[in-house]
Amino acid sequence: MAQQKMVNGVNVDELFKTIDAIKEKPDIAKFKFRATNKWIMGTHNRATIKSFYGALTEDDTRKPMVFELDEPPVLLGKNEGANPVEYLLVALSGCLTTSLVAHAAARGIEIKGVESRYEGDIDLRGFLGISEQVPVGYQGIRVYFKIDANLSEEQKKELIAMAQKYSPVFNTITKSAPVTVGLDT
Amino acid sequence: MAQQKMVNGVNVDELFKTIDAIKEKPDIAKFKFRATNKWIMGTHNRATIKSFYGALTEDDTRKPMVFELDEPPVLLGKNEGANPVEYLLVALSGCLTTSLVAHAAARGIEIKGVESRYEGDIDLRGFLGISEQVPVGYQGIRVYFKIDANLSEEQKKELIAMAQKYSPVFNTITKSAPVTVGLDT
Repeated sequence: MAQQKMVNGVNVDELFKTIDAIKEKPDIAKFKFRATNKWIMGTHNRATIKSFYGALTEDDTRKPMVFELDEPPVLLGKNEGANPVEYLLVALSGCLTTSLVAHAAARGIEIKGVESRYEGDIDLRGFLGISEQVPVGYQGIRVYFKIDANLSEEQKKELIAMAQKYSPVFNTITKSAPVTVGLDT
Repeated sequence: MAQQKMVNGVNVDELFKTIDAIKEKPDIAKFKFRATNKWIMGTHNRATIKSFYGALTEDDTRKPMVFELDEPPVLLGKNEGANPVEYLLVALSGCLTTSLVAHAAARGIEIKGVESRYEGDIDLRGFLGISEQVPVGYQGIRVYFKIDANLSEEQKKELIAMAQKYSPVFNTITKSAPVTVGLDT
C-alpha cells in the first residue's frame, strides 16, 4: 500500500478523496450535529454530546462527552464549570484553529505551531432586561493568532483570512443562523 | 441575618441587589470573557478558560478549565474530543437553560426540571470550499424543551420565549456578532 500523505497531521490524500466523493454525491456533505442538556440547579446544567449524522450514516459509536456549565459566584453560580458564553469562545477557538490547519494542509503549507487567544465583550444589562438598547449577545469578539511556520507575515495573514472564510463556527457567529425553539411534545 | 430568598436554586435577593447596583452604576454590567487555544496535531486542539473581567474586577481565582476539541474519523480526526460545532451547541444549551431558569426565578416561577435537545444542520461543501453557494456555518438549529413545572403549555411557551429573548448565546447566534481576527505581535 502506498504511504498516505500527511501534512500538519491531516491526511491530505483522504481529504481530497472526500472532496471528490462529495462532488459526485453532494448528500455525503450533509451533517447533523446534536447535544442534549439537563438542568441541575440554579445556573448549573450539564450538556452531553454523542451521536451525529454524516456521510449518509448515523454515527452512535462515540462515548458520551459530558460538559458542566455554571457561572462564577459574581453571576450567582458556584463555578461548577465554564459558563455558556465561555463555551462559545471554546467553540470559536477550535473551529478557527482546525480551519486554519486543514486549509494550510490542503495547500501543502507546513505549520509547526498555532496558538490563539479570544476576548469577548458582554454588557449584562441585556441579559438582565435592564435596557432594551443594549445587545443581549456578544458586542464583539477579538482574536489574536500566533503561527509558528516558515512563512512571511503576509502569508500568515492569508492563513488567518482562510480560517475565517472556511470556519463554520466563525461564520455562524458573524453571519447568524436561524434557531427555532419549541416544546418537546 | 435574614434568610436569602432562593427560587430554582437562584438567589433572587442577590439577583435584584445586582440589578439595583447596575442601574446606579452601569459599568458593573460590563464583562469580558476569554479563552486561549493551542493546536495539538491535525484536527486536535485544546482550549483553556480561566480569567474574566466583570463587576469592575479582574477575576483570576478559578482553576484552568481545559477542553479537548477534535473531529471523528469520518472528518479526519481521532475522536480526542467533541468538535467545534458541537461545542457551539453545548454553549447554546447551557445559555438557554440558565436564561430560562433565572428569568423564571426572578418572576417567582418554580421549576422542577428542564431538559432540552439540539440538532443543527451543516453542509460541509461550505467548509471544504466546494461550493460558494452553500453557507459555511450552521444552516439552522432546532431546539426542543421539556419543562417539569406546575404550568400550562402556554406558560411553558412563555418561559421558552423569555429564554430566547435574554440568552446571550442565542442572541449572538441569531443576530450575529462582529469577530476581528489578527496576528498577535
